Amino acid sequence: MADAKIPYSLNSKAVAQATQAWLHTRGVKVEQIAELVMLLQQKYYPNLTMEECIHNVEMVLSKREVQNAVLTGIQLDLLAEEGKLFSPLQDMIVNDEGLYGVDEILAFSIVNVYGSIGFTNYGYIDKLKPGILERLNDRSTGEVHTFLDDIVGAVAAAASSRIAHRKQAERENDLGLPHAPEDTEEAAKRLDAEKGQKQ
Amino acid sequence: MADAKIPYSLNSKAVAQATQAWLHTRGVKVEQIAELVMLLQQKYYPNLTMEECIHNVEMVLSKREVQNAVLTGIQLDLLAEEGKLFSPLQDMIVNDEGLYGVDEILAFSIVNVYGSIGFTNYGYIDKLKPGILERLNDRSTGEVHTFLDDIVGAVAAAASSRIAHRKQAERENDLGLPHAPEDTEEAAKRLDAEKGQKQ
Amino acid sequence: MADAKIPYSLNSKAVAQATQAWLHTRGVKVEQIAELVMLLQQKYYPNLTMEECIHNVEMVLSKREVQNAVLTGIQLDLLAEEGKLFSPLQDMIVNDEGLYGVDEILAFSIVNVYGSIGFTNYGYIDKLKPGILERLNDRSTGEVHTFLDDIVGAVAAAASSRIAHRKQAERENDLGLPHAPEDTEEAAKRLDAEKGQKQ
Amino acid sequence: MADAKIPYSLNSKAVAQATQAWLHTRGVKVEQIAELVMLLQQKYYPNLTMEECIHNVEMVLSKREVQNAVLTGIQLDLLAEEGKLFSPLQDMIVNDEGLYGVDEILAFSIVNVYGSIGFTNYGYIDKLKPGILERLNDRSTGEVHTFLDDIVGAVAAAASSRIAHRKQAERENDLGLPHAPEDTEEAAKRLDAEKGQKQ
Repeated sequence: MADAKIPYSLNSKAVAQATQAWLHTRGVKVEQIAELVMLLQQKYYPNLTMEECIHNVEMVLSKREVQNAVLTGIQLDLLAEEGKLFSPLQDMIVNDEGLYGVDEILAFSIVNVYGSIGFTNYGYIDKLKPGILERLNDRSTGEVHTFLDDIVGAVAAAASSRIAHRKQAERENDLGLPHAPEDTEEAAKRLDAEKGQKQ
Repeated sequence: MADAKIPYSLNSKAVAQATQAWLHTRGVKVEQIAELVMLLQQKYYPNLTMEECIHNVEMVLSKREVQNAVLTGIQLDLLAEEGKLFSPLQDMIVNDEGLYGVDEILAFSIVNVYGSIGFTNYGYIDKLKPGILERLNDRSTGEVHTFLDDIVGAVAAAASSRIAHRKQAERENDLGLPHAPEDTEEAAKRLDAEKGQKQ
Repeated sequence: MADAKIPYSLNSKAVAQATQAWLHTRGVKVEQIAELVMLLQQKYYPNLTMEECIHNVEMVLSKREVQNAVLTGIQLDLLAEEGKLFSPLQDMIVNDEGLYGVDEILAFSIVNVYGSIGFTNYGYIDKLKPGILERLNDRSTGEVHTFLDDIVGAVAAAASSRIAHRKQAERENDLGLPHAPEDTEEAAKRLDAEKGQKQ
Repeated sequence: MADAKIPYSLNSKAVAQATQAWLHTRGVKVEQIAELVMLLQQKYYPNLTMEECIHNVEMVLSKREVQNAVLTGIQLDLLAEEGKLFSPLQDMIVNDEGLYGVDEILAFSIVNVYGSIGFTNYGYIDKLKPGILERLNDRSTGEVHTFLDDIVGAVAAAASSRIAHRKQAERENDLGLPHAPEDTEEAAKRLDAEKGQKQ
């Protein structure tokens, strides 16, 4: 618990690092999520590279809203695995009970950050369970990934939405159309300003 | 516009009937939505009948929140079909543009009424476009169903969620477990009371 | 963890009872939630009684989706109170950190079950923190209610939505308008059938 | 309808400009939305300037998901004002009927883009109706703003969330903490690259 004398001060970097570390500990690599993205998007963008998929997954994982969902979901999985939740929540999560939908709710908060166009991709991949999702759903291991499997699917769906937005921007760039920024201009402005001052 | 002298008074029955009538006018039958439900649920409930599917679709369509989404979506499809929306909204809806996600948003408000367990079914069916959804997506007809195809998929997903809840209740009934009502007890109570007073 | 020999079978009654018991243990009474409902709704329905408010809160709490959110939220509060979450999730929840929004996400899954008309009431009450919400937000007690305060507000908002739907039905009944049931007819039908067979 | 010979190609700039133009036509200025943001945020950030509020509102309005909701909502308001919607949708929207919640649903899709921390601000402002929201709710004018009033409140809530994220980043910068980017790094990278090539 926070020391009463030092007011709590969030450290965003620590949250980001914990997200990466916990995904790793639970056996999920960014590359594996990127493979799901490739599966979802290659028919729309035949030239899409794994490097781009990885980059977009990393960008999704850089969002606080996403990190919050990842950490909370993994924590609940972990506690269920250790048998430390109260009954009947313990049983519902260990068994990924059909009428327990909090895992889908957390997953959806991830998809939502990149808008409604990711809803379909999320549902599709969550039903088919390709790649890493198959392993996360294998209950014979004794591991509990009730939250994580939905979360991984949601990160892949969100990265797909991000790609759709970026590809449209690229296309318009190529056509020489005037550029309508989606909130990126400001980011660049701030970083430019920082560079100017500090470096 | 409402006559200033008569205060506006919603007539729920009129809303319900308009929903049915417009679905019919736009070429969607309850049976066709029920077929999507069967497709989604038969592997979980081998004894599921078309009659049950139809009934559950009707129950979903009896919800005001669902009726609001259906009517609003069909209205926008219709106006787009007639070329009556302002630019660039007109083009975005006629072309079911990839970055336009208001159709998914309306669809989601339908799924949500039966909770998060329907998210996956919605995305899955919206991606595969089986049955009636294939026809609704055929743009060669000149008809615009940008909203309706997502809405029909959402109604099917919601009906699937409703079935999952009901089947669980039946199973517990069969096991002789004490019954935990989900808001049905009160409905029955009220109808019983009405019967007692009036009939 | 579930005994390997007995396949897991959800017991809805147990989930419902745990929800009631945990709310009680964490110091929240149905009457206190009903007071929030009264505060939100009395200006629209001057004849609204506390009894009706209590009844509608109970009906909201009878929904599985709501029970799932309540149990998950209280479990996370409890673990945070005991210092048992991993860092930095532990600090974020204990301090109800401003950029941590999973509590709002769970709360929203409750409001959503009764549709979008409850969004406004939820936000309003969550900002003003009247009645029981004030106590739940008092951090000087050492208790952690990061999730529970949002959840209680959400249950009150959902109950308000439920009242709005029911009052409209009553008004139409009084006007002698034909009744459009919102899924209640079926509930009654089923209970009637059960009664016929068993009692 | 799109000319059959020229494949439809979205022009993001046109969507962004239409959003600005329609807000202006319907009597809403960015400054008025910024005033709502100031109202919501000044107690948390006493040094917050109107300039910052305006800037954050503009950044919210630069998002495609937000533009889609704004344009769709204004279109529906406009058609209702002109009496061009079918019955009973026409009456429900003109009268901002209590059980019609599609306006809240569109508004929510705006808030969601900046995550769940904006839910509360949205509900609060939508209930109190300060500033521009009061005028948008005045039905005596003959104008219909059933969608727009919720949308304006949602943009203000989203801008407030955006400020909360940015202020945290600034605070960490001031403390000399390592910076965790939230998707901005990439934006800057791309703009830098573009600059390098073109300017």
